Amino acid sequence: MNNEITLSLEDAESLSMQVLMAHGFNQSHAAAITRSVVAAQRDECHSHGLYRLISCVETARNGGVDTQAEPEVTDQAPSVVRVDAKQGSSLLAFERGKPLLIEKANRCGIALLAINRSFHFSALWQEVEALSEVGLVGIAVTPSHAFVAPAGGHSPLLGTNPMAFSWPRPGKPPYTFDFATSVVARGEIELHRRAGKSIPNTWALDSSGQPTTDPTEALEGAMLPFGGYKGSALSTMIELLAGPLIGDLLGHETQAASPDHDGKPHHGEFIVAISPHALLGQDAAHHLTHAERLFEGIESQGARLPSQRRFAARERSRIDGVTLPRALYDELAELASAKPTSS
Amino acid sequence: MNNEITLSLEDAESLSMQVLMAHGFNQSHAAAITRSVVAAQRDECHSHGLYRLISCVETARNGGVDTQAEPEVTDQAPSVVRVDAKQGSSLLAFERGKPLLIEKANRCGIALLAINRSFHFSALWQEVEALSEVGLVGIAVTPSHAFVAPAGGHSPLLGTNPMAFSWPRPGKPPYTFDFATSVVARGEIELHRRAGKSIPNTWALDSSGQPTTDPTEALEGAMLPFGGYKGSALSTMIELLAGPLIGDLLGHETQAASPDHDGKPHHGEFIVAISPHALLGQDAAHHLTHAERLFEGIESQGARLPSQRRFAARERSRIDGVTLPRALYDELAELASAKPTSS
Repeated sequence: MNNEITLSLEDAESLSMQVLMAHGFNQSHAAAITRSVVAAQRDECHSHGLYRLISCVETARNGGVDTQAEPEVTDQAPSVVRVDAKQGSSLLAFERGKPLLIEKANRCGIALLAINRSFHFSALWQEVEALSEVGLVGIAVTPSHAFVAPAGGHSPLLGTNPMAFSWPRPGKPPYTFDFATSVVARGEIELHRRAGKSIPNTWALDSSGQPTTDPTEALEGAMLPFGGYKGSALSTMIELLAGPLIGDLLGHETQAASPDHDGKPHHGEFIVAISPHALLGQDAAHHLTHAERLFEGIESQGARLPSQRRFAARERSRIDGVTLPRALYDELAELASAKPTSS
Repeated sequence: MNNEITLSLEDAESLSMQVLMAHGFNQSHAAAITRSVVAAQRDECHSHGLYRLISCVETARNGGVDTQAEPEVTDQAPSVVRVDAKQGSSLLAFERGKPLLIEKANRCGIALLAINRSFHFSALWQEVEALSEVGLVGIAVTPSHAFVAPAGGHSPLLGTNPMAFSWPRPGKPPYTFDFATSVVARGEIELHRRAGKSIPNTWALDSSGQPTTDPTEALEGAMLPFGGYKGSALSTMIELLAGPLIGDLLGHETQAASPDHDGKPHHGEFIVAISPHALLGQDAAHHLTHAERLFEGIESQGARLPSQRRFAARERSRIDGVTLPRALYDELAELASAKPTSS
């Protein structure tokens, strides 16, 4: 028996919509979440793909996300949009705030979208890429639960605090990166634990604050920021920008604050959009073309641009559809056939 | 004989003004550069202190900086100020653009200052700290000459591309960091070479692209970005933001473009200011106080906040003045007594 199943993108979308709506997500939230998980599956980012529907449903069952929340958009200042996600998914909040963010960036040159009180589980590259699709430069940061010790410390305090950036390239997919400010993703340590493998002693500290090669001790201790004190400073900046600066929580507060106290991320997100055309007028096209020299310089020496594997997978998936483990498909199909819990 | 000399801050300023004006810098440029080098000396950042006057003067003699340039401030868009430094020092360009940047940040929430065509030799912390002094969050990035290979590559392409951030703290010096995106500063490798010491093999590649412990080979080869592909991506972002996005050069183009072709940095700078009050209104004070919990969390586990050594030195220098090697003082005194080269 084949252990995998291949779905067209349309069938993957239908499956996702059924799973979410069977568990109370309204049409708008289900559609926003579906766009995100299918895009991740399409790009072969499996950890943010259809697999995430399981935890979405679980979080909804536990009351950790409001499946009906109507995001409230506030025109806060000439260059600032705020969206109160009202404990709903960050994805719908982003979609509701995006048009005004784009309008402000195009008019003012630079603009900020602050999302508050959101259930956040998705990758940031989707949001910055959406900005580059309309010709803007995008930067997004968000905190997450406190799993990471500051450089020179020994206890969890900082989130894995990812940062994403996207730059529009003429006639090509954007230059996009999206990385956690921890040395590795927490899931990577979990994978080592399940496989019974040791980890490099630069990834994490045990609960007594000493470097460890034991993934179980690492998960009970503290992960380390990438790049020593520089990564630690960057992570601190991210917590400040996507936390107190927009009136939201710090990483070490998000777990207790989630409605189900179950540790689902529940916090702010900070997104900046910048318009090359507002800055440079008719010279923008020339300078965007000029930027290609940097990418050529990187690739010509055999180094890779970030996200290229994702873009290649995207092309494949558009033609071939997406493949997922049959066990995951069966679990999702069962969730899809559940009796709706609310309208 | 004592090998050091101590000057009051006022005497250090006088000395700097005399050196610069004796070599043709007009009053405005001399004052802006003096504020920068004396602030660095005061904070015991010796590499950006009075020592830099020697290369300023040399650059002026070689025609690498316009000592009379009048920066041109353009109100580019509701949230964007551009300043054309006209091949003068970035410091006066920043001072001329700063009032409008602050006004725009306070009015619009977020604003951008783009400095073009500037001779840049100073540390970025001064500029972001100046924004935090008026209650703003500041971020600044700038490219520099191409000394760094992208992660996975082997040849110099990226600048050491520093990034600085500053956050206003109630009743305290700001939370400020300023770091190069290379593993270490180029000067650090030079110090090892002079001392005949080897370097860790994670700092740089030799000219054949292999990791090296020989500082001479490292200086002829390529420095490495901090934090592997993440630091490399961050450095690439910095080049894009402070280069093509503001209509300026990439790191690998700045050397050939400097008026004296002598490799003095000559390029753009990208500075963002964000107003907590514009974002949060009367809640801003509460959230700025709340942010202190993060700093307490860092310090309570024995980790240090960045810039604390600088702030401690600043307090000392205000009382005790600044100390410099007598040989440096003598060289500066001689430069100060030179016949003015132009008015």
